[in-house]
Amino acid sequence: RPQFNYQKVILFPGDGIGPEISKAVIDIFDAAKVPIEWEFHEIHKKRVTDQGDLITEETLKQVKALKYALKGPFETPIGKGYRSINVTLRKRLQLFANVRPCKSIKGVKTPYPGVDVVTIRENTEGEYSGLEHEVVPGVVENLKIVSYNACQNIAQYAFEFARANNRKQVVACHKAGVMKQGDGLFLKVCDDVAKNYPEIEFSEEQIDTMAFKLANDPTKIDVMVMPNLYGDIVSDLCAGLIGGLGLTASGNIGKDCEVYEAVHGTAPDIAGKNLANPTALLLSGIMMLKAMSLNDYANRIENATYKVLEEGKFLTGDLGGKSTTTDYTKAIIDKL
Amino acid sequence: RPQFNYQKVILFPGDGIGPEISKAVIDIFDAAKVPIEWEFHEIHKKRVTDQGDLITEETLKQVKALKYALKGPFETPIGKGYRSINVTLRKRLQLFANVRPCKSIKGVKTPYPGVDVVTIRENTEGEYSGLEHEVVPGVVENLKIVSYNACQNIAQYAFEFARANNRKQVVACHKAGVMKQGDGLFLKVCDDVAKNYPEIEFSEEQIDTMAFKLANDPTKIDVMVMPNLYGDIVSDLCAGLIGGLGLTASGNIGKDCEVYEAVHGTAPDIAGKNLANPTALLLSGIMMLKAMSLNDYANRIENATYKVLEEGKFLTGDLGGKSTTTDYTKAIIDKL
Ligand SMILES: CC(C)[C@H](C(=O)O)[C@@H](O)C(=O)O
Ligand SMILES: CC(C)[C@H](C(=O)O)[C@@H](O)C(=O)O
Repeated sequence: RPQFNYQKVILFPGDGIGPEISKAVIDIFDAAKVPIEWEFHEIHKKRVTDQGDLITEETLKQVKALKYALKGPFETPIGKGYRSINVTLRKRLQLFANVRPCKSIKGVKTPYPGVDVVTIRENTEGEYSGLEHEVVPGVVENLKIVSYNACQNIAQYAFEFARANNRKQVVACHKAGVMKQGDGLFLKVCDDVAKNYPEIEFSEEQIDTMAFKLANDPTKIDVMVMPNLYGDIVSDLCAGLIGGLGLTASGNIGKDCEVYEAVHGTAPDIAGKNLANPTALLLSGIMMLKAMSLNDYANRIENATYKVLEEGKFLTGDLGGKSTTTDYTKAIIDKL
Repeated sequence: RPQFNYQKVILFPGDGIGPEISKAVIDIFDAAKVPIEWEFHEIHKKRVTDQGDLITEETLKQVKALKYALKGPFETPIGKGYRSINVTLRKRLQLFANVRPCKSIKGVKTPYPGVDVVTIRENTEGEYSGLEHEVVPGVVENLKIVSYNACQNIAQYAFEFARANNRKQVVACHKAGVMKQGDGLFLKVCDDVAKNYPEIEFSEEQIDTMAFKLANDPTKIDVMVMPNLYGDIVSDLCAGLIGGLGLTASGNIGKDCEVYEAVHGTAPDIAGKNLANPTALLLSGIMMLKAMSLNDYANRIENATYKVLEEGKFLTGDLGGKSTTTDYTKAIIDKL
């Protein structure tokens, strides 16, 4: 096929089931004639920089140059002296926003049908600053950093996202009653930014109350924006509500580039057995296509995927079915 | 009735629906002939100490002297210069553990029947240290403090609780992959303490994964122990799973004294209308009776309460019923 005019995009296939689910995405994108060309890159098992990163400077530069990357699951190496690959990518590429839509999928039974929430998480600072020390023996101090700039970036992104996706509400989640200055700053910035988006309803909620609402009745919640750690917790909570990490897309957004990823694990027990569910990586790839303004391709693949899940004839084991990864992939291709 | 030999216990009736639900608990305890005598104390609307507390030194001393207190919901005053009453009580009385059992109630429909989890939360430090400052304009630093002593207290309490209540598993929830020293210390202490309780199965889980599991299938989880903020979020999440804060008991445990409380709000919209559900305060009172070794009284009242809820004939509005507070109270008394 002609590679001419095709946009190059980075793929990190990943460990465990990574290669299989990456293959599924490649095959489906090929069948849909998506005009992109994959450039494969590696994430290492050992540190390759002085800072303990698992990724080379060249690869980081290339992500910036090509702008879009898709990433499979990675095994975290055991031992010390390295930096989590997720943390490296977010920090080094300044991927300041993590976006995780969680929408109930027809055909996947969960206690709550009708969930359609998006978690927008500040991705660079807060409790993840990595600053900590032992003050006196037996007393550790962890620094949580909240900066005006990071709050501004994430708040603005949340409202832009809501506007671009026709979402009606944004709720800022915080614990400003306790962290009056830190979370207080986050809340104030959200409040200020909200004024520029009069068509979007803005509200705020304590993070504990939000956790309560999500567990009690998530169907009334729309877009949530929050600091790093709360977002880490809430985005997983939301994945639990719609049936699992095997079904949720994730995007890490920066000013220069964007990395989309399946956030589930490498599932070593089923790796290489053609049993893995590629949906999370596929939905992440679809999010990427939308960001690249390849909406027609994205929508066609998305519709085909949801149809296959809804019909329930070709489901992988994690969803109670008996299909192989390739059966499921073929079923989606047949519906394109 | 003879007050002779009756143990004195403190009651903070609270604001809004507080007085009504307190009255319900008093009436039910009276009917069950519980051998305690209530001593009423006030929580103020304005600061009454130099530290901005809403409670007097005398009252704090009296809680320590009498050892047990039950507390209704309180309105948080608007404005600055005071300290949250919850934070005051926890800090000043060194109530180092917050215990929140959440058990599905037959008769209360929720997405997940069969939940029976207990959140044990470190209650004095972590993100709640209250230490924060602006480093340079636009950059705030919040300190999260993790001390060996507090970790030791909470870990020990969690295992003692599990042993005393015949629970089989304790899971320590943390984010030690990111806060390696802080949450790392918490995890290490839990791990060490676990060795003294060989009959209890100990495990650990990242807090995000735990949020996922609670939303996805909470029925496999037993006792959870965790730092302050995670506990704040998870205990509300669990309340959401079993049908609301109107149904969950809470105990704040110290070495000198214990304060049991309804953690829901003051519900000003229905205050004074005889519509409030007293279950949360009642279950908190029952927890208190068990701590006082008044188990027979506690069990009798608990069984009567669960029967009334299961039969569903006398439910308050929040549970979809039409009964008044007094109808519901009488129904429980009739079953004693
Ligand atoms: C691996 C870990 C550092 C990461 C996080 O906590 O952010 C993960 O849980 C996630 O949500 O992407
Ligand atoms: C009022 C507030 C300080 C408190 C907390 O966050 O601890 C409350 O949410 C709770 O859980 O008791």
